[in-house]
Amino acid sequence: MPSELDFTQATAGLRTLGGQRVWSLMVSLFGDLAQDEGQAIDGPVLSAMMALLQVKPEATRVALHRLRNDGWIASQKSGRISRHSLTAQGRAETVAASPRIYANPDSGPADWQLILLEKPGRNLEQLGFVQVQPRLYVGGGDLHPPEGAMPLTAETAPDWLKAQAAPEDLRVPYTALLATLETLESALPRDTRLSPLETAVLRGLIVHNWRRLVLKHPALPQPLIAQDWPGRRCHHHIAALLTRFPRPALSEIEPPRAAA
Amino acid sequence: MPSELDFTQATAGLRTLGGQRVWSLMVSLFGDLAQDEGQAIDGPVLSAMMALLQVKPEATRVALHRLRNDGWIASQKSGRISRHSLTAQGRAETVAASPRIYANPDSGPADWQLILLEKPGRNLEQLGFVQVQPRLYVGGGDLHPPEGAMPLTAETAPDWLKAQAAPEDLRVPYTALLATLETLESALPRDTRLSPLETAVLRGLIVHNWRRLVLKHPALPQPLIAQDWPGRRCHHHIAALLTRFPRPALSEIEPPRAAA
Repeated sequence: MPSELDFTQATAGLRTLGGQRVWSLMVSLFGDLAQDEGQAIDGPVLSAMMALLQVKPEATRVALHRLRNDGWIASQKSGRISRHSLTAQGRAETVAASPRIYANPDSGPADWQLILLEKPGRNLEQLGFVQVQPRLYVGGGDLHPPEGAMPLTAETAPDWLKAQAAPEDLRVPYTALLATLETLESALPRDTRLSPLETAVLRGLIVHNWRRLVLKHPALPQPLIAQDWPGRRCHHHIAALLTRFPRPALSEIEPPRAAA
Repeated sequence: MPSELDFTQATAGLRTLGGQRVWSLMVSLFGDLAQDEGQAIDGPVLSAMMALLQVKPEATRVALHRLRNDGWIASQKSGRISRHSLTAQGRAETVAASPRIYANPDSGPADWQLILLEKPGRNLEQLGFVQVQPRLYVGGGDLHPPEGAMPLTAETAPDWLKAQAAPEDLRVPYTALLATLETLESALPRDTRLSPLETAVLRGLIVHNWRRLVLKHPALPQPLIAQDWPGRRCHHHIAALLTRFPRPALSEIEPPRAAA
């Protein structure tokens, strides 16, 4: 089993990639580990996970306080320890994001569509479409175009359309995440064995860095994503890592015993 | 047979609609009446036609001179009279325009296509396409899109697409022509009989006013033309009039005898 030092070093990239607000990181941990109704994370386990993430106890307390105030997390005393769980609202938002976060990178709708609007000025991102021109959008074949939109079909998407449909503003952060994931993988050789606590923290970090980017743009159907788009390459690494390090049961996770 | 006065009055609208440069009007006359190789219009017949068009002999001579200089018309003496005919170049341009001018308003390609270009800035009008957006064009299904263009298909064109594909800058002149054609038809009741000379002049005027507009924009396939588009309504009147007053044979056309 690798030492804690190795784990800290191996995850340094994911911890410093950006967007590491403690409360947001905590939401990622809960979302990956305790999304089901009735699931709760014991205070000592949460503290141990946050410590492994190099978050100071005071910062953890502030983040928990904030998440309780914002209605994301509820805490209940159970004997000597607190048990923390997602609220109904927090769970609903987490569940809504999960299909994107845990999507199989090679599945997803193979059908796609283009639609032309009569006039510019509408924003169809909320419907899941991606704008290519002021009045021209692309999206998965399963999306419902707004009334009056003209459906167009094409057999294949040329490379330039894929390039134009890609969220170009995310190229740099996706490229940075890709490099970080590749470094992480080389720091975690095949025979790596992680404790349930380490696995939970690793998964939380992976999910956290992934959701920060993937939820910023609509899902594109496979035929519209270029093979070398860094977001697609990240997706393959993310899916492989989450498969390689399966989610531990909450009951398996034990806080490290106080140093003897 | 209506008197010459009636004919002059009936055609006043077509003669004054605009674009009545004498040389251009003369090209229309030749194009309708003597397009075939070997056909020529005798000087006296041409003079009579131009007189019926209220063009003064001096203006006719100037126009003929210009058309000869520009290589459109060739004149040959045959005994006492001149015979005027389209040059090979003039014939070629006339022949090229004829499919548009004499098209059946209810035929034409039923297939249509949309194409999306990678970048804006190209002008595909020369290929017969009509621009709908900076990078989006529509056209008949028989057109050849440029390399790299993305072909799109749609089952039906919404009304707003038809409106956007229409040459809106020609709405006013088409509307004026439509009103003129309706007035002309009411001035030419069913039992109207025209002399071959009058028929030739009437056809020349009709063709002239029609080609001035129809050749200014690419042909749109039927499914992309709104029913009430004034250009389409003009087309129906034009076709009906040209059918109702068939082209006379050159040999039938006789200049009016000098007043006794």
